[in-house]
Formats: sequence, structure tokens, C-alpha cells
Amino acid sequence: MSQGVNVDVVVMAAGKGTRMKSARPKVLHRLGGRALAVHVLDCAARISARQAVVITGHGADQVEPALAHAVPELPLRFARQEPQLGTGHAVQQALPLLADDGVTLVLSGDVPLTQPDTLLALLRACDGQHLALLTLDLPDPTGYGRIVRNAAGDVLAIVEHKDASEAQRAIGEIYSGVLAVPTRLLRGWLARLDNQNAQGEYYLTDVVKFAVADGLTVKAHRITDAVQVAGVNSPAQLAELERAHQRRLAEGHMAGGVRLADPARFDVRGELVCGLDVEIDVNCVFEGRVLLGDGVRIGANCVIANAVIEDGAVIHPFTHIDGEKAGVTVGPGALVGPFARLRPGARLGAEVHIGNFVEVKNSSLAAGAKANHLAYLGDATVGERVNYGAGSITANYDGANKHRTVIEADVHVGSNCVLVAPLTLGAGGTVGGGSTITKDTPPGALSVARGKQVSIPNWSRPQKKG
Amino acid sequence: MSQGVNVDVVVMAAGKGTRMKSARPKVLHRLGGRALAVHVLDCAARISARQAVVITGHGADQVEPALAHAVPELPLRFARQEPQLGTGHAVQQALPLLADDGVTLVLSGDVPLTQPDTLLALLRACDGQHLALLTLDLPDPTGYGRIVRNAAGDVLAIVEHKDASEAQRAIGEIYSGVLAVPTRLLRGWLARLDNQNAQGEYYLTDVVKFAVADGLTVKAHRITDAVQVAGVNSPAQLAELERAHQRRLAEGHMAGGVRLADPARFDVRGELVCGLDVEIDVNCVFEGRVLLGDGVRIGANCVIANAVIEDGAVIHPFTHIDGEKAGVTVGPGALVGPFARLRPGARLGAEVHIGNFVEVKNSSLAAGAKANHLAYLGDATVGERVNYGAGSITANYDGANKHRTVIEADVHVGSNCVLVAPLTLGAGGTVGGGSTITKDTPPGALSVARGKQVSIPNWSRPQKKG
Amino acid sequence: MSQGVNVDVVVMAAGKGTRMKSARPKVLHRLGGRALAVHVLDCAARISARQAVVITGHGADQVEPALAHAVPELPLRFARQEPQLGTGHAVQQALPLLADDGVTLVLSGDVPLTQPDTLLALLRACDGQHLALLTLDLPDPTGYGRIVRNAAGDVLAIVEHKDASEAQRAIGEIYSGVLAVPTRLLRGWLARLDNQNAQGEYYLTDVVKFAVADGLTVKAHRITDAVQVAGVNSPAQLAELERAHQRRLAEGHMAGGVRLADPARFDVRGELVCGLDVEIDVNCVFEGRVLLGDGVRIGANCVIANAVIEDGAVIHPFTHIDGEKAGVTVGPGALVGPFARLRPGARLGAEVHIGNFVEVKNSSLAAGAKANHLAYLGDATVGERVNYGAGSITANYDGANKHRTVIEADVHVGSNCVLVAPLTLGAGGTVGGGSTITKDTPPGALSVARGKQVSIPNWSRPQKKG
Repeated sequence: MSQGVNVDVVVMAAGKGTRMKSARPKVLHRLGGRALAVHVLDCAARISARQAVVITGHGADQVEPALAHAVPELPLRFARQEPQLGTGHAVQQALPLLADDGVTLVLSGDVPLTQPDTLLALLRACDGQHLALLTLDLPDPTGYGRIVRNAAGDVLAIVEHKDASEAQRAIGEIYSGVLAVPTRLLRGWLARLDNQNAQGEYYLTDVVKFAVADGLTVKAHRITDAVQVAGVNSPAQLAELERAHQRRLAEGHMAGGVRLADPARFDVRGELVCGLDVEIDVNCVFEGRVLLGDGVRIGANCVIANAVIEDGAVIHPFTHIDGEKAGVTVGPGALVGPFARLRPGARLGAEVHIGNFVEVKNSSLAAGAKANHLAYLGDATVGERVNYGAGSITANYDGANKHRTVIEADVHVGSNCVLVAPLTLGAGGTVGGGSTITKDTPPGALSVARGKQVSIPNWSRPQKKG
Repeated sequence: MSQGVNVDVVVMAAGKGTRMKSARPKVLHRLGGRALAVHVLDCAARISARQAVVITGHGADQVEPALAHAVPELPLRFARQEPQLGTGHAVQQALPLLADDGVTLVLSGDVPLTQPDTLLALLRACDGQHLALLTLDLPDPTGYGRIVRNAAGDVLAIVEHKDASEAQRAIGEIYSGVLAVPTRLLRGWLARLDNQNAQGEYYLTDVVKFAVADGLTVKAHRITDAVQVAGVNSPAQLAELERAHQRRLAEGHMAGGVRLADPARFDVRGELVCGLDVEIDVNCVFEGRVLLGDGVRIGANCVIANAVIEDGAVIHPFTHIDGEKAGVTVGPGALVGPFARLRPGARLGAEVHIGNFVEVKNSSLAAGAKANHLAYLGDATVGERVNYGAGSITANYDGANKHRTVIEADVHVGSNCVLVAPLTLGAGGTVGGGSTITKDTPPGALSVARGKQVSIPNWSRPQKKG
Repeated sequence: MSQGVNVDVVVMAAGKGTRMKSARPKVLHRLGGRALAVHVLDCAARISARQAVVITGHGADQVEPALAHAVPELPLRFARQEPQLGTGHAVQQALPLLADDGVTLVLSGDVPLTQPDTLLALLRACDGQHLALLTLDLPDPTGYGRIVRNAAGDVLAIVEHKDASEAQRAIGEIYSGVLAVPTRLLRGWLARLDNQNAQGEYYLTDVVKFAVADGLTVKAHRITDAVQVAGVNSPAQLAELERAHQRRLAEGHMAGGVRLADPARFDVRGELVCGLDVEIDVNCVFEGRVLLGDGVRIGANCVIANAVIEDGAVIHPFTHIDGEKAGVTVGPGALVGPFARLRPGARLGAEVHIGNFVEVKNSSLAAGAKANHLAYLGDATVGERVNYGAGSITANYDGANKHRTVIEADVHVGSNCVLVAPLTLGAGGTVGGGSTITKDTPPGALSVARGKQVSIPNWSRPQKKG
């Protein structure tokens, strides 16, 4: 933390999320490819929080393992809240894990889009000594509790809509659910909470009342960007924040020079890193970690995950790339697609061409190799300038084990061949179209395995039956 | 109908729709996969109308057969309006088909998105005895006829914009084109219509004038959702209402728990029924009747029609499924795509895998069968755990008739095979890659049909000419 | 030009466009498939400008050749501005190329969406004798120079925001950057420019001051459509104008009768000409010159470039067509896709069917021919009613040269065949599945080339290792 304050983040993650209508706990629903609560933990890590204490309850058995290692750089502990008796009760469960030398920052596991800068500003308002609320200006605050301030700008109260005077209802500033407070103060106030209210719950917001009663100053950091404090309670809200998140990512990439044909049709779920003069056409989806080198062009309707696309490569429309754990590399100047699929372990060298209806898996293709039409390359090592014919297949799987096919440089494999691995095709050789090759072929040779062509004259084709 | 009133719906469907610039009559243009007028008839059926009388004119020869059986539960009759002399004249054509014991509800065949609840509320205002207008509040009503009410809220007149006083022009309530009226009253008023106006037309709205002149009360049911009474006069309006319709469907699915990656890129043309925890990625289109079981995930850019996708199945991006009349079934836990196509009669069992560039038509695959790469399965019965090799094809069509291929359990078909139907591959057998199989194969055997591999050394490849 | 005035257009195209973060000069960035400056030149041509003088500077070596032949009907000259000392200095560079009998119309090479009608109206305001400014009404003009007019509506001054009085700041009319001026007046005023200002630049807008000082009338043509005068300074602005442009195109096509499933997911980069009753589903992209005949239907997610699709043809989803220079023709009533790819020189006759995972390049298919599944047709001439089997390939490339395959009428090619070109299959013949055909086949014959089928009983498949 900038001011050297120890920040302990408390993340509320015990709620059920009934309106999600899902067996998945609410905070594990994904936005931009990551669980909602992981966005919150990631934000905590970015402000260099000392630790996060996640309050779990509903679905705790799913939530805790899902979050435990999601943000490795952030020390994480869990506190169970069972039953759920309100927000104040939730934070009470975390207290044993919080030290009095720090500031407690209370976040919600279902509010994914808060920015680190916003929290840092809130912590500056807190300044290690004040209760500080994150507040939001709303054009229409009807129904929300209003922030009442004194002339000096300090907070006097949060007044519920139903209790608000006409003048108070004119206030557009509301409480966001996020606050920062010195832990030593929080501990005292939480001990004074009661549940004498209509819901019978312990409300965290009562700390404002206590602070004012104790004559302490309550600060507020006010923002206007509602998305940053918007929570997810339903699939519709999830979709709305997903779009806001994607729009923000799109704007970031455009500011960096990426040309997007349509920022509203651009989805990144993970990390996309782009070089200079990258162009991305409509309706592309990026997942996992994807690097696009200088001058890369991505055609319309591509889905690309876990891949490195090097400088000047062109990915034509309708290309599906997913490197999963093994990754995919597309070399400089390579051309891929349309209708190509690159699977884990595809390594394309410079100027390689992969054309339509071609699948490449766990295979390397050296510079200048081409597989342009309807083909499968699996577990193959393909040399430079190899031309791999239309319809040809590496039979890499014998039903039990996978075997490797080695195609040395300058080999020309004809159409509709089957290469039964393990197999090596010697450099410069040619395989005749329609051949099933089961034995190694010599360098420079023409190798063929096919039946003799015969014609039966005046052949009468089958007739359509009744 | 809730109050036990007999409702006869009159649907105006005689107009030409010049601005559609189409040979298709306007009311047959499709929204959400159904003709505009079918939406109207469907709404009539949902309020349990006794019958619908459709007024046809332009394109009547196309309109009548297209609508005749579109909503089977609704008795339907047609009345021709030739020539078209105005809205009042149109309803006059229906009168012989309307009985005096009922209420006539006048709808427009080009206003597709009226909700049943809205019409039921209008009918409650009518109450079997009053003329009742459906009205709309508009932020900017300039140009529309205003609804002038008395202190009791009853309607005194519809005043055309050009005839309106300054005070009347401040009224935001306009007439929607929809009304309900006891048929016995309607009959009398229609007899009094004249065409002494600038257009020389008989206007249905003149009934308001007659009702007031007769000292009868005119009720109005006012709504604010303009989409419900918006008509289609141009392709731009059609597209606008299509989007409104799709947005409404998306919201309904999200309220039910479906997670949509982008509600603005989601199209349903027919009936989509989803289980729990269904996820649908961007840019998918659903047509006909589609059922998605619990936990189904649909990847980006899929087109799915007339199919049942069972629990836990995953449809990867770029998958095209269309069951047409025969339907398609995807079994529980199956994996399909990317770039897969399932055609009518594809029946995939549990855990079946259909991979890239694979087409399945009129074929059943038992549990655990796999066809992962570049293959065609047509008219085939495929047993459990069969592995169907890359590039293999069922030759099911001899140019005149289609024949069946039976692949028994645990068969392993190699790559680039041709299976010439009719054919049975015995259980547990293996077919060597590159084989064309024309005769049944014994269970447990390795069957091969291929040429012998030979190599011609030092072969000189053709040289580039010219 | 309508009034017979000689219009010389000066296009400002010397700027660097730092915020584009691109090696490409700003005016060469593409919108709707054409460079920004080409839109401007095209607009100049549409108003029948006598010539355009393009002021180049940054990236002039790229800009000049890229524009030189882009709009053949418009005489074009270039003037270098090095260094760049302001807008006035830029126009000074053009002066030697401008004749005093004309009107100079100053446009910006990075403002692509100005409409010809707007410029014609501005030229009418100029009337061959006045300085005339194109101005824009903005809801929030903060930061922009305001247009101050006298009671007669003539312009008195452009007042910078910082220099404006309270009353002037209330003015919503701002200068757009576009002006028209008799060249003889311009020449005199440009000679009087100085750079005694904070930026040390020569400002073109100073001509307003000179005109007023000279007692001349300054006219303004005011518009409200900000898109027409919006410039591109960043990828975000480029994307925003791209969407505005596409929306305008979509509206134009819909006004012409085209039914677009979603106007927000429709991209045209080039020229799309549609017949009657054309339907285009979501997320299609059109490039180059594309003609769609009457009744053509384009399915979802198609990318179509440089093609003629004749009446009644249906293009199913996920079809990729790019005719490049050779073009593609799809005959009347043809069915193409899903997952089909048509490449340059594909000529499909009437009622031809091209199905899934089929690629066609430089081949003609006569009426009624079919290639429905996983196939490649390259450099082929295919006769009427030919049935080209699943998985079959024309081996048109011997590694050095391309050869032609002729398949005469009514031939039936079986599955997974290889046709080694040059080759002719005689009319009415049949090729057995799995055959590699290297020699011409007689008409009417059954031709086969395959190995004999043998079975090895009780074959033990490989076992999974380790």
C-alpha cells in the first residue's frame, strides 16, 4: 500500500445468490473468464493488501477450494459465516483473523469491477485513522440510503430512503457497500452491533452511527462510475457487467493502438497482449493467455485461446485455436484458416500455411510447410517446405498408443494419403496420392501404395428402388 | 377469457406494405422465425379468443394458406377486403362472421409484440359493455391523434394532431390502433360510418365519436411500452422489433437462470427450453424447438435447430445442428465440435464425441463412440465405444438408393476408410487405414484393403513449366 | 458542380496521428474497407470537383502511392508540407496548384463521413464569392471555438472557448474544419497569415478575421449530424465512425428492402448490391464487390467477398466466399454451405449444391452438380448432374504445376477418391469409392483402383503402453 498501511481485505462471499438460479455459488460465477470473487481478490492483490479474509457460507465447500490458489500472490484465509445473520455478523467472523495494526477494507465477492485506484483513494481518505466509505453519485438514488454530510464534507449518517426527509431525498450520493476502517476501531464497533431491526440482522453500516456517536470523523470517497460498485445478483446483471468489463477491455486495447472492427463484438477472457498494428475483426473471442505480435491480423469470428501469434501472421475468419496447457505457436508471417483448427502443441514456423478444414495437434511444422486443405496432422514433425496434400491424415493412434510421424524437409505428400505412425518419410521424397504408407520411405523416392486402375465398360448403375 | 366473455378477434391483414419492397405480403414477414400475423394469432389464442377473423386483401392468396393452420388451437376464418377502403371498411367485412353475444377485439396483423396480459386488461376495461381503447403514453406524441379524457378518466374523443388545441397537444396519450367493443354496439356504429374525409376512407376510429354521441362511456387501457403496439411498415422497423423481441426473450431466459455471454447477440426463432445452469456464449442462433438440459454449455457462434441436447453436453464453437423434422439428439455428457455438423436423424448417445469437420446424418452413435476428425457418418448404426477414424466416410449412397452401415461395438475404423454400404463391421474388429471395405467384416478381425507400398528411388518430381 | 463553379478540393493529409499508435499514416487507416482519405476523395469526386490537391507530410511516401489511383475519375495532385507549421501553412503548400477562377474547398483526410449533399450546400453558401464555413450544432460545445453571427446570420468571428464571453459560451455552433472560399480571396488572405500565437502555427481559421476586416460577408452552412465532420485521431474514434458508417449502410439497404436480422451486426467493406427480397442473417461481412440476386438468403456468420450470388441461391451459415480478382459466381437456386468455402474462380451453375467442409477453387460446376461433403475441387470442369463423393480430392498440383480435371456430365465419383490431374472422366461413368484415378476413364464405365479386401481373424490390437 502506498502509505505503508497494512491493509486486510475482508471479502463477503457467503451469500446464496438465489436469483442466479444456479447450483454454483454466486461468487464463483464467471465474468471475463474468471470467478467474480477472483476479480475482487485480484484487485486486493493489486493494492498490495497484506491478506484477504474471505467470509464463506453458502457453498463454502465449493468456494474455498476454487479461491484458495486463484491469486497466488495474495495470502488468503477463510472464515465461515453460518448461519448468515447480516453484513455486520459476516465481518465479525473475520475479526479473529484481523490484527489491530491494520486497516480493514470490506469488499463484496459479487462486485467484480472495482478498480484498484478507487480503493487506493478510499484508503487515502481513511488515512489509517478514519472510517471511510466509498460512495456513489446516482442520477436516480430512489430506494437507496443517502449519504448526509456536514459542511466540512464529512459524513454524518447514512439515512435510509424511507426515513429520509425531502431534502435528504434530493441527495444523489449513496453508500456503495465498500468501506475502509482502522481495525482497532472496527473491533470495538462490531461488539456494539445489535439486530433490533425489521430484518433481525446485524448491519455493518451501523458503524457509521457509532463513529459519529463517538465523535469521530467519517470520510467518504465519492465516485460516479456505478459499474465499479455494481453487484451481481442475477444472470441479467452478470451479463450487463460482462459487457461493461468487455467494453473497458476493448477501450484499453484501442488506446494501445489495436484496431477493433467493433468494440461491442470483442470478448477477452483472460489476458490478451497485442503488439503494434494489430487488427481484430468482428466477433472474436480470446481466452486464456494470448499474445499477438506486431502486424497480426485476426479475421472475423475467430476463437483463440492460449496461443502466441507472431509478427505478421494472418488468422483468417472462422479459425479456432486452443493451446490449452501445451500452447500453440503461430510463426511470423504464417497464414491460418479459414476454418482451421490448431490444438495443443501445434507449433507453426515462419510462413507456414494452414488452410481450410485442417486440424493440427501436437505437431511442429517448420518454415514454409503447407497443409492447405482438409487434413489432419497429429503427433507429427514436419520439415521445411513440406507440402502436405489435401485429405491426408496421420494415423497417429493405433487404438491404444499414439505414435509419431516424421516428415522430413521438402517431402511432398499427395492427396488422401494415410501415414501410419510410427513412420519417417525421407527428405525430398514424394508420396503418391491415395497411398497408405506403413513403412518408412527413402529420401528422394516416389512411394506409392495403391490398387491398379481398371474400368468395367457399360456399367449399369444401381436403380432407384420403389 | 377470464370473465367468461366471448372474444372474437379481428385481425387486419389486408395491407400491402409498400415500404417493405417485397413480393411477400407484409403480415407474412417473419419476426423471431414466425410470420408477423402468427404472433397476433398466437396472442389471440393465449387469451382464449373464441375465433379470429382475418381480413385479407393484398396477397390474400398467400396470406390465407400461410395462416390457416399456423395456430391450430384457434378457430380461424377469413374475410376478404377488396378494395381496401379504410379500417372501418375492413371491420365491416368481418361483421357477417361475428355474433352479437361477443366482444370484438380489433388487432393488426403487422403489430406482433402485443402481450396477452395487455389485451386481457383491455378486455377488463371493456367489461363486455363498453367501447375500450388501448392507448399509449409517448414522450413525443407529435403527429398522433391524442386521447382526450373527462374528469372521470373516460374518453371523450380522439383528436387529430392538426385539429388539436395547445392544451390537447400537451397530452401524451395516443390511440394504439387496438380496441375492444361489444359486437352488438360495433354493428350499429359501423353502419353509420361514412367516408367524407380527405382520404375518402371509412375510419374505424369514428366509433369513438358515435359512442360519445350515444352517451355511452368509452374506456381506455393505457400502457407505456411502445413496442407492444408498434407496427411493421419497413425492413428497418422489422429489424427494430426483431431486436426488441430477442431482447425480451433473452431477459426471460436470464430470469430463468440461463447465463448469456451477450444478450444482444442471442437469437431465438422458435422455442428454446433450458434446464439449470445452462451457459450460452456469444452469437448463437436457435431455431425451431430446441431443448438444452441441465449444465449444457453452448460455445460461441453456434447455430442449433430442432434438437435435444441432454444434461452436461458441451457444444463447442462453430457447431451447426439442424434436426429439421427428424430431430437431433445429443446425449448426456457428449462433446460436439468445433466445426461439427449434425443433420436430421443424428442420435448421439452418452459421452459421444464428434469433433472437427465431422458430419453426422441419420445415424445413431451408442455411448462412448467417437468420430473426432474430418469424417462423414450417414445412415449408420454405430456401436458403443467405436472409434471412427479421421477422414473415413460411409458410402451410403450408390447414386440411386441409400444403404445402411452397421458398425458394431468396439470396432476401430482406421483413417481415410470408405465403408461401402450396405455393410456390417463385426464387433471388436479393426479396419486398417486407407481401406475401402465393400464386404462385411468378421468380429475381432483386422480387415484391410489396400495396395502394396513400393518406392521408386531417385524420383524426379515434375518441374515448373513456363 | 451544380452551379458550374470550378471546385478545387484541398485535402489535409500531412498529420502523423500519434494516438493511432501505428506505423501506418493516419489517413490510410481503413473504414468500411477503404482508407480514410479515399472516402474524402470519393466525396470530392461525387461533387464533381475539378481536382484534388492532397497535402502530404508524415508518411508521404506511403500516402501518395496509396491514393494516387484510388479514385480514377478525380484528377489528383500532391503537395508536400514539410515541416508541418499549421493548417494555414498546409493550404499555402497547395496554392501553386490552385487557379484563381475556382473555389477552394478545404477538407480533412481523416474526416471520412462527410456527405456530398452537405458539401454542395456549403458551396451554395459560398456561391463562388463568399468565404463559407461548415458549422456544427453541438449539445455540449465546451472547448470548441464558437461561431458568432450577426443579426443577418453572417459570421462575425470564430471565438475560442477560452476567449469566449458567457453569452458566447452559450452558443452551440462550432466550426467543423471544412470551408469553401474563392481561391482569389484565399490567396490574398494566406499571404497575410502569421504565427504569432501560443503554438507558433499558421492557422487557416484566421481567414475569417481577414474577411471580416475586409468587410466581406462570411457565410456558414450549419449541420447537426456530428458524424459527418468527426475526425479520426485514435482507434476508438475509428471504431466509432466505422459503426456509424455501417449503421448508415444498413439503413440504406433496409430502405431498399433488404431484411437484416440485426443491423448492428452487418458489415460492408466495399459495394453490396441487393435484389428484391434479400435476407441477410446476423453477423455477416461483405467485402469488395458483392451482388445478391432476388430472393437470395444469406445465413448467419457468413463472410462473402467479390462474388455474384444469383437469384434464389441460399448461402447457409458459416460460408466463406472470396473471389478476389477472379471472382466467384453462385448460380440461381444453388445451395452453398454450411462450412463451405468458395475461392477465386469458383463458378457454380444453377441448382448446384456445395455442402459442408467443401472447398472449390478455379472450377466450374454445371447445373445440378453436387459436392456435398468434405471435398476439394480445384482446377476442375464439372459437368451437369455430376455427383462428387464425400472426401474426394482433385490432385491438381504435382508440386510444380497445376493441371485440370474434367468430369463430364452425369459422372458419379465415389467417396475418398483421388483424381490425379490432368484427367478426364468420361460422361456417365462411375468411379468406385477409395480409388486413385490417374488415367482417363471411359464414358459409361465403372472405374476402380483399390486393393483387395482381406481379413486377419482374431487380430490382437496394440495394447496401451506404460
